This record gives sequence, C-alpha cells and structure tokens, in this order.
Amino acid sequence: MDKNLNFAVIGGGSWATAIVKMLSENLDKIYWYVRSPETVAYIRKNKHNPNYLSSVEFHTEQLVLTSDMNEAVAAADIVIFAIPSAFLVSELEQLTVSMKDKIIFSAIKGIVPETGKIVGEHIHETYDIPFRNIGVITGPCHAEEVALERLSYLTIACADEEKAKYMAKRLQSDYIRTKVSKDILGTEYAAMLKNIYAIAAGIAHGLGYGDNFQSVLMSNAIREMKRFTKRIYKIDRNINDSAYLGDLLVTGYSTFSRNRMFGNMLGKGYTVKSAMMEMKMVAEGYYATKGVKKLKADMKKRVKTPIIDAVYEVLYEGGNAKKVFQKLTEKLD
Amino acid sequence: MDKNLNFAVIGGGSWATAIVKMLSENLDKIYWYVRSPETVAYIRKNKHNPNYLSSVEFHTEQLVLTSDMNEAVAAADIVIFAIPSAFLVSELEQLTVSMKDKIIFSAIKGIVPETGKIVGEHIHETYDIPFRNIGVITGPCHAEEVALERLSYLTIACADEEKAKYMAKRLQSDYIRTKVSKDILGTEYAAMLKNIYAIAAGIAHGLGYGDNFQSVLMSNAIREMKRFTKRIYKIDRNINDSAYLGDLLVTGYSTFSRNRMFGNMLGKGYTVKSAMMEMKMVAEGYYATKGVKKLKADMKKRVKTPIIDAVYEVLYEGGNAKKVFQKLTEKLD
Repeated sequence: MDKNLNFAVIGGGSWATAIVKMLSENLDKIYWYVRSPETVAYIRKNKHNPNYLSSVEFHTEQLVLTSDMNEAVAAADIVIFAIPSAFLVSELEQLTVSMKDKIIFSAIKGIVPETGKIVGEHIHETYDIPFRNIGVITGPCHAEEVALERLSYLTIACADEEKAKYMAKRLQSDYIRTKVSKDILGTEYAAMLKNIYAIAAGIAHGLGYGDNFQSVLMSNAIREMKRFTKRIYKIDRNINDSAYLGDLLVTGYSTFSRNRMFGNMLGKGYTVKSAMMEMKMVAEGYYATKGVKKLKADMKKRVKTPIIDAVYEVLYEGGNAKKVFQKLTEKLD
Repeated sequence: MDKNLNFAVIGGGSWATAIVKMLSENLDKIYWYVRSPETVAYIRKNKHNPNYLSSVEFHTEQLVLTSDMNEAVAAADIVIFAIPSAFLVSELEQLTVSMKDKIIFSAIKGIVPETGKIVGEHIHETYDIPFRNIGVITGPCHAEEVALERLSYLTIACADEEKAKYMAKRLQSDYIRTKVSKDILGTEYAAMLKNIYAIAAGIAHGLGYGDNFQSVLMSNAIREMKRFTKRIYKIDRNINDSAYLGDLLVTGYSTFSRNRMFGNMLGKGYTVKSAMMEMKMVAEGYYATKGVKKLKADMKKRVKTPIIDAVYEVLYEGGNAKKVFQKLTEKLD
C-alpha cells in the first residue's frame, strides 16, 4: 500500500477527537469533518475541540478541518467514521462524492437504527464496498484516557490484513498499542453488544445489586456474547481477547458509560422516555437492543441471550425493571 | 446423605462470619470456632462479631461458639475452614481430634505457605482424607455483601457431586444462589490465582494506568488463568463461569480487596516490607505468587504467565514496579 494515503475522520465527538489525536502522532495531514461550522472555526482558532476532550491541544497545521463532508471524503483514501450510529444515515445523506473506491473504517459501536445492521454491513450494502475495503477500529478504549495519554490497546479488524496493519501503524504510539484481527463482524458485533450489557449493569446497579452480582452478570454476559457472535459469524476467535472481553469490561465497569448511566436511571425508577430526556442523548445500546432482538427473530436456530432479552423487556415492552431482573437472576449462574 | 449432619465453621474473620450467616438461614445448630475467647464471649453476649461484619445479628441459640477447635471439629460431620491460608498449619497444630472421617470444605483462597499446596491438596495429603470428602466453597463473593444480603452466587465444588449439592442446599437462601461443580482443583486454583491478578491490578493502578489498561489486564489474566488451570488439571471447564471469571472480576475490580490495596501501595512506591507493615496483615496473593512460581518451576512443560511473573519480580526479586510493568505491557494484547 502507498505509504501516503490520505485520511479523513468523520465526526466531532469524543471518540472522533481521540482518533484525530492518535493519528496526529503519525500523520502530517488529517482531514477532519465536524458538522458545525462554529466548532470548526473554534478548533482552528483555539486548537482544541470546545465540546469534547478539550484538554487535547492540536497542531492545527496538521489538520484540514471542514464542515463539508464531501470535501473530506473526496480528499481521502481512507475514511474513518466516528459518529453515533443513530445519525449515520442522516449524516450520509449530504454525501454526493462516491465512496466506492475508498477504504472505510468504522469506529462506531452500534447498530444503524434504520436498517438494523452493524455499520460495516450497512456500508457494504449501501455503498457496494467490498468487505476487504472495510475495517473496524475497536477498544477497549475510553476516549478520555486517550486524551490523558494513558496506555490503551486497540484492535483493528479487516478481512484484508494488510489494511488492518496499515491502519494499526498509523494509530499506534507511545500510549497506544495495536493488534490486528480478521474478525470484522465479531469485533463489531461485540462492540455493539457490550453497550446492551452496560445498560444491564446500570439497571442492576440502580436496583441495588452489588459487586458480587455485577461480576456474575459480566461472567454471564461474556458467555452470551460468545454464543451470539458464534452464531452470527463462525471464526476462530478467543472471546477473552481484549476486543471482546476487554471491551465489555471497560464499558460494563465504567461509571461514565452513557449506556450504564442510562440503565442506572431505569433501575432507579425512571421511565425509558424520562431517562432519555434527562440524558439529552440516546445511548447506543438503546438501538442495539432492538436491532439484536430483530436479528435473533430472524435466526433459524435459537440462541440463548437472557440478558439481552431482559434489557429488551425493560426498554421496549414496558417491563418493570425490578421484576424483570428478579426473573433474570434465576437464569444466571 | 443424612439430612442432619453437624456443621463446624473454623475461623473468626469476615468470610467465616459470612458463611455462618448463610448457614444460619438453614441450620438449627452451627459449631463455630473463633480463636479468641474474648471474641467468643463478645458474640455470645452481643450477638454479633465485634471485628468483622458487625452489622450481622446472629440468633445465638443457633450457635455453639467455642475457642477450642477440637470441640468444634469433634462435634462436626462437615468442617468448613475459613481462615487465612498463612495461619492454617499453625492453627491446626492444636488439633488432636481425628479428621479422617470428616467431610472437609475449604473456603480459603490461597496457598499454604509451608507446603506450597492449595488447601484441598494440603488437607488431602496431611490428613489422608480422600478427595471425594473434600470440597471447595468459592465466590465471586465479598463477605460484606453477604452481610447486606445482596444477591450473590456461590460455586460449591466436590469430586462427589452429592456432597457438593448437600453443602449448596445449606448455603442457599433468598440472597444466595449456588451452583455445583466437579472441578475442585480448578476452582481452588482460580480463587488463589485471582489474588495475584488483584495485586497486579493494584500495582497498575498505583502506577497510574487507567481503566483501559485495567480491562486489558483482566482480559489477559483470564487467558493466563485458563492456561494455568488447564495445565494443573485438565477437565471440561468454562473459564468464563462465575467461579473463575466472576471471581477474578469481583476481586480485580474491588477497591476494597486487600490484595489490590497491597499492589496499589507497591505501585505508589512503597517497598514490599513497608506495604505489609502498613497493611498490618499479609495479602493472600503474596504467598500465592511464590507458590505458583514454584509450581511452575516444577512443571515439565512451560506455561506462559507474564502477569504472575511480573508480580513475582516485584514481590520477591526487588524489581522496580514501574520498569517491570513497562515490560509487562509489551507482552499483553
């Protein structure tokens, strides 16, 4: 691969900002699309993102900031999407430039609500991009710790290992270690599923369950994730690798995770609607739960996912969190 | 099995106290050995343990409290040991009563320093008790949450499933769920190993590593535990079951774990000796680390355990925690 391919990062949130920071350790030029022209102007002037990871100082001469997605995508050979899955379809409506010959990496951990697909599959189908040109960037990685340059490990998955390695090399630095994987579907499904388990952990916490239960919940969650990803895409994978178990733990144990916070409010007695309003944003796991339930319904063979089922019941069927989790505890071991 | 076997609990610490509480939900009479006659007198009078889980009120008419271990063991058909492994040999020196025909359960999570064996093996060899009469009670379970009656899950392991079930039935209640297992060695080794990983988590935290790294450390630890327990005792086990992964997580993520606190002090720059003095007690993982290293040296085939090796280097070879962990991070993924 050409050593000097152009990179574009699509998104202005914390994870997008962290990715730009990581890339800026290695690249002279990064196209960075941020929707709001005011934010673009602010970053140009003040050298940091006003809304997310604002402690991160950028060398703005490395950045080609734009609020025109077409400009960023047109200039790039490799496009990294890092926007909430809920906005992906609407954001991409403005795209007139072709993505057909681009390499696309998804750093999004969720399901596209409009299609019920994970991002890799959605992009593959919508833009007719072959899987060998689609990759996934996954944690375990809180963006906030990237900002602090605390040692973190990323997994870069692509069916074409050369491309995974190419991306890995551009993301790694003193504080970022990388590893490549061929399991593009498994890593992306795991990243999405862990948000549902984080909601479950939050609900349990809100209901007053303690650390003993939390560890049992996580132990059951990883077994559930293994069964589910195996059904979706059978490949030689160790579910205890960082991209799967590590990612589950960093979210499931984080008191800052939006998904866990959302669950916590439900456990404390908020309705789904009021919890969403209170949070002023939608947790990725909310859509993921619905998407996974639909995927399960379409499967020929049943796969046992009591935790996901319980979260679904609370989120979409008006289930009383206390009663639903009481039932769930009987199914865990 | 006779429905009315007599139970004795040996130990006055928090885990012993929690076990007495759990049994007292089901049994009319429990022999409870606590070393200090003053503590025995205090519990008799005030109905709670003055030193541990003091919020737990006992119905003292259910308890036969004694500071004479022989009295408790002589009366019991089933003896549960719940004292620190470091004191097991010296405590047992006072024993004149035969244990040969007793059923012994170990609720101790460690290695016997004098022999380098886990408790089950030590008791098997020292008292000539067959493995079918030896069992293990394991978590994930903080005693403090038992005191609060927060839902917890225990695993009871015994080569003789009937005995495991017998014990399980006596421990379970509204807030305790149980599960039985045949993996007596694996569950006990896991319970011991997790203390070493908790020390590692503490060291990392003390050195300033964050949540991203912690999740990678736990992900590597469970893989290491799988390799190690497989080498020790090959049996069909799912390392992600609560007795293994759950137990690792409840300790590795606990800021109250003595092992993690001990590690944290080492990470902050305390010497091993000063950390021990400061804590006024020895963390189980300290002995476990030495025992495991010796076990490894005696193995014919090498087993890769970079985390245990790193902890050993810090604890026993005067290794600089920062440098040792810097090296360790290169070996994790």
